[in-house]
Amino acid sequence: MNKEDFFIKQFISNTKLIGDDGAVIGKWVYSNDAFFENVHFKKEWMSLKQIARKAMLVNISDAIAMNAKPKYALLTVAIPKDYTKSDLKSLAKGFKEVAKEFNLEIIGGDTISNEKLDISVTIISKTKKPILRSGIKKDDLLCYTGTLGTSKRDLEKLFKKEKLSKESKFIRPKLHGEFFYKISKYVNASMDISDGLFFELERMSKQSSVGFEFFYKIDKEIGCSGEEYELLFSFEEKYKEKIEKIAKKYDVPLTIFAKAVKGKYSCECANHHF
Amino acid sequence: MNKEDFFIKQFISNTKLIGDDGAVIGKWVYSNDAFFENVHFKKEWMSLKQIARKAMLVNISDAIAMNAKPKYALLTVAIPKDYTKSDLKSLAKGFKEVAKEFNLEIIGGDTISNEKLDISVTIISKTKKPILRSGIKKDDLLCYTGTLGTSKRDLEKLFKKEKLSKESKFIRPKLHGEFFYKISKYVNASMDISDGLFFELERMSKQSSVGFEFFYKIDKEIGCSGEEYELLFSFEEKYKEKIEKIAKKYDVPLTIFAKAVKGKYSCECANHHF
Repeated sequence: MNKEDFFIKQFISNTKLIGDDGAVIGKWVYSNDAFFENVHFKKEWMSLKQIARKAMLVNISDAIAMNAKPKYALLTVAIPKDYTKSDLKSLAKGFKEVAKEFNLEIIGGDTISNEKLDISVTIISKTKKPILRSGIKKDDLLCYTGTLGTSKRDLEKLFKKEKLSKESKFIRPKLHGEFFYKISKYVNASMDISDGLFFELERMSKQSSVGFEFFYKIDKEIGCSGEEYELLFSFEEKYKEKIEKIAKKYDVPLTIFAKAVKGKYSCECANHHF
Repeated sequence: MNKEDFFIKQFISNTKLIGDDGAVIGKWVYSNDAFFENVHFKKEWMSLKQIARKAMLVNISDAIAMNAKPKYALLTVAIPKDYTKSDLKSLAKGFKEVAKEFNLEIIGGDTISNEKLDISVTIISKTKKPILRSGIKKDDLLCYTGTLGTSKRDLEKLFKKEKLSKESKFIRPKLHGEFFYKISKYVNASMDISDGLFFELERMSKQSSVGFEFFYKIDKEIGCSGEEYELLFSFEEKYKEKIEKIAKKYDVPLTIFAKAVKGKYSCECANHHF
């Protein structure tokens, strides 16, 4: 077990709320993700505005995966001492732009001086029907949105000091909120793909107590690609056409790749933690 | 204006919720504070359990100052790569101990690997009557709990590599929740003293549009001492005896030191930010 999971395990016996993209309390969903310099990004990879935008988007992605609409955000922002006022404005602009796009309000947080730029975002979102990782039923079809693999490829480019297109999902995650809210009534289980398709499937396998029968072999370049922020979800076969119709309307590519069966599934990607 | 305030100012035009110890949404109060290595503490100053405890307590202090009872917490914990499992257990123990003491549930967060130990805590608390910084009325008496000055003195000791008693407030903030909830019906405005009495008075002066007439001179050793986590609040003179009686019952020292008057108040402590 990696240290991250070991630490999280210390808290699990005290609550049933840990272990999904967000914690559900009544109609509210709470999610929290860190976005730290030299952990999640290097400053030469992205502009300050892009960094602030991505810190927000990866958190909103959790809310969407729970079928919740983001309403409020709290930001911890640790800022290097040498940042200029113009730097601070660019950073603030990124946060504010995303807040406006998603109609959410930044209601507080903490700003401190630090050696590097470290961000932690808490998103408070609202849902009528939370969708959990644990809801996969036997015979459900498994599906993901968008194209997987480009984030891994783009990360490798960055390590080789190549430049990425502004449109790279690694810089600018593409969320599919409107599509997902529309199909939510047909969805049994969902989460977002932050650590890679295979990693997330292992988590869903554990939490839903199912295994998967793949329709074809998925390459590691696809299945081990993290930071995709695409949606991974399951539904009954009878809803397939309805979901595909809505996906077409919202121009969201869908890949149906497996079926839930008895058993369990283990990921074979190299562990990227610690 | 320091950079921290400059950054926060970028967000204020978009919301009325920023600027207090917590943001009030209906009956819920949301507060968020960072507790970062080499910013708020040095690792040789405190054990890992003490660090986790203090990270929780300084956040719960905000909830209490809003007259709210902490219910849930989300933790961002960035952990140095060389921490052992035993280190992680000590850290988790500190968080869990405080959660148990205050009957709150740790419902999620994010754990990552980092160069140093950086913690950010979001507290979700519940209130029937939030008390704000902006509520001071002319002629209100100003009051703080406990003894001020020891945190500044103890911090200076730490910089001289002297050891502190385990009971030092710098290590173990002493909160006065039960007392404060009992007197809350008599209180017009409140906040906790995290940056020092004089700093907080300037904030309250701005937000309540009042000045202060001091009953006696308060030394800088007292007024500029940060990290006290005592309560600063105001009330009408007619409630003085009632409040003093409850304070006696809960064994909380009270110092009534000023009266709210027309005007404004500016702090003269050295700026400790950036």
